[in-house]
Amino acid sequence: MLEDKNPQKTSLAELGEFGLINHITQYFNINQASSVKGIGDDAAVLDASEKQTLVTTDLLIEGVHFDLSYMPLKHLGYKAVMVNLSDVYAMNGTAEQITVSIAVSNRFPFEAIEELYAGIQLACDTYKVDLVGGDTTSSTKGILISVTAIGKANKEDIVYRNGAKETDLIVVSGDIGAAYLGLQVLEREKQVFQVDPNNQPDLDNYTYLIERQLKPEARKDVSGLLKELEVKPTSMIDVSDGISSELFHICTQSKVGCKIYEDKLPLDPQVISTCEEFELDSTMVALSGGEDYELLFTVPIADFDKIKGNPNFSIIGHITEENQGLNLVTRANQEIELKAQGWNSLKEQ
Amino acid sequence: MLEDKNPQKTSLAELGEFGLINHITQYFNINQASSVKGIGDDAAVLDASEKQTLVTTDLLIEGVHFDLSYMPLKHLGYKAVMVNLSDVYAMNGTAEQITVSIAVSNRFPFEAIEELYAGIQLACDTYKVDLVGGDTTSSTKGILISVTAIGKANKEDIVYRNGAKETDLIVVSGDIGAAYLGLQVLEREKQVFQVDPNNQPDLDNYTYLIERQLKPEARKDVSGLLKELEVKPTSMIDVSDGISSELFHICTQSKVGCKIYEDKLPLDPQVISTCEEFELDSTMVALSGGEDYELLFTVPIADFDKIKGNPNFSIIGHITEENQGLNLVTRANQEIELKAQGWNSLKEQ
Repeated sequence: MLEDKNPQKTSLAELGEFGLINHITQYFNINQASSVKGIGDDAAVLDASEKQTLVTTDLLIEGVHFDLSYMPLKHLGYKAVMVNLSDVYAMNGTAEQITVSIAVSNRFPFEAIEELYAGIQLACDTYKVDLVGGDTTSSTKGILISVTAIGKANKEDIVYRNGAKETDLIVVSGDIGAAYLGLQVLEREKQVFQVDPNNQPDLDNYTYLIERQLKPEARKDVSGLLKELEVKPTSMIDVSDGISSELFHICTQSKVGCKIYEDKLPLDPQVISTCEEFELDSTMVALSGGEDYELLFTVPIADFDKIKGNPNFSIIGHITEENQGLNLVTRANQEIELKAQGWNSLKEQ
Repeated sequence: MLEDKNPQKTSLAELGEFGLINHITQYFNINQASSVKGIGDDAAVLDASEKQTLVTTDLLIEGVHFDLSYMPLKHLGYKAVMVNLSDVYAMNGTAEQITVSIAVSNRFPFEAIEELYAGIQLACDTYKVDLVGGDTTSSTKGILISVTAIGKANKEDIVYRNGAKETDLIVVSGDIGAAYLGLQVLEREKQVFQVDPNNQPDLDNYTYLIERQLKPEARKDVSGLLKELEVKPTSMIDVSDGISSELFHICTQSKVGCKIYEDKLPLDPQVISTCEEFELDSTMVALSGGEDYELLFTVPIADFDKIKGNPNFSIIGHITEENQGLNLVTRANQEIELKAQGWNSLKEQ
């Protein structure tokens, strides 16, 4: 009875998540002096008199972000927290609190929810953050979990996405691509299981990949490692959607281009062997896989000696002029344009 | 393949929301010195050097919390913000920021989401809060919205649920029961519409009720009104689940009992006339209706003269000893025990 007779129809799939966010945010004003940074980075920055408060939030939905047939609820709870802490660390901050809201359909017994919160608790204890609020309700279908993380940082320590400068080095912590491959392995095992429930899968060759998918760890340590090295990143972001997509964010916001090198991408041996087995291009997996929750950042070229050879970090390329665009230099020394292939959940459904 | 062969089964319905929360929270420790108050009140309190930060979050799910056949999306957006700001005001704080996460199925065109955010924007502009973050994703079914609000308050101004003392007066702002009746009217019209889509409903007699349901306002003004009167509540809570349920929270946390008076409950004339039409008991509606987003608070009996006769407030009873329980004194001067009939979404599905 409240329907518009001639509604305009623009499909969400067509618009994509970034398009949708851009459309939505253009109408919002900043009213509070304390809102130092709102939408557009890993976390919002709120002024406090001594330190600034960081706030970030993520929503995980069954059937979109996870599949309970291979994601144990405890791991889901742990991962939901990691995803959010990772955003706080990507601002170079310290995570201090989280709120967790869940909705569950009645097909879940209480013990299932207890498992979920056991994972959340483990994450809280391990990362020294406090659960300080939330909401619990029923859903009409499946389970969903919404986490907000709150952190702190000294104003001068916060690292945004928009500070990358030409000639800066592009650095990534740890290795990449494993979480995506872990998902491929689990999807394959699920299909095998559906055909033959008595089949006992042998997952020994994929333990690292599966752990990266089911129990990712946020890089709480990077901030301290960089402080010890006396390096302050000029820009930073966490790798949730894949390096291509994250570089796209940094370059767009910093108004620069970049060049990264295929042979510099840090890949675990299991990533390489499993890519061969699955007939996947390991470079594509590393660039577009996502869910690694490593930190991608840029540092002044003068810091080269401090970073090179450090086992925690890999220098994968450098920042260029904006008009050069985003490029990958292949092993055959060919330059190809990077495409932001970030995961678009609105398109996939 | 990761299934427990003999899982325990405790139904969520049986446990209820409070039971579930109690079970979940007992295992969480507070790690941060800045976590002044976590779970257990309308908002969490986080220490900052001058002011304390307030954080609260709520989740609204289509088919559980709202029905889009009579809830326009713009109103939904507005209401989702109000529900959260109300929690900040119930701590006697000032709301400053919100984050909003939404999940939508592809049946919604972009314009629908734009409408939703138009309501959020209107709420932000009207209440001077900033949208500072969020997450946008797809859902496998329907629409859901998760809002986190962040506010500030001087440490000495914050009002918790646990400070009510014997002989304190129980006060409520505005009037109660209208939002629940608005929902009943809308549900009835929906059924009429389903039978005869050409029927033009005459809603003139229910305008106030429908407005209270579809466009509630959080009581941002109460804090200032009380300051002018030089009254500081001893406890405070917002009326989201109904006065019975809110009194239950205050009395449990304050370790007191209460006595409220049927003839003191503030009811709008439309509530009285519509209760007659629907053959509903107006006292039951006022006590258990919920979604009023008024503030319920207690003040020392010495403040009686400051509150009485104030058109914004109604004194509805007083706090008693804990062992007296929670009681309603009827118009016939009978005492009956109050039951916390709070809305339990886990039970209803």
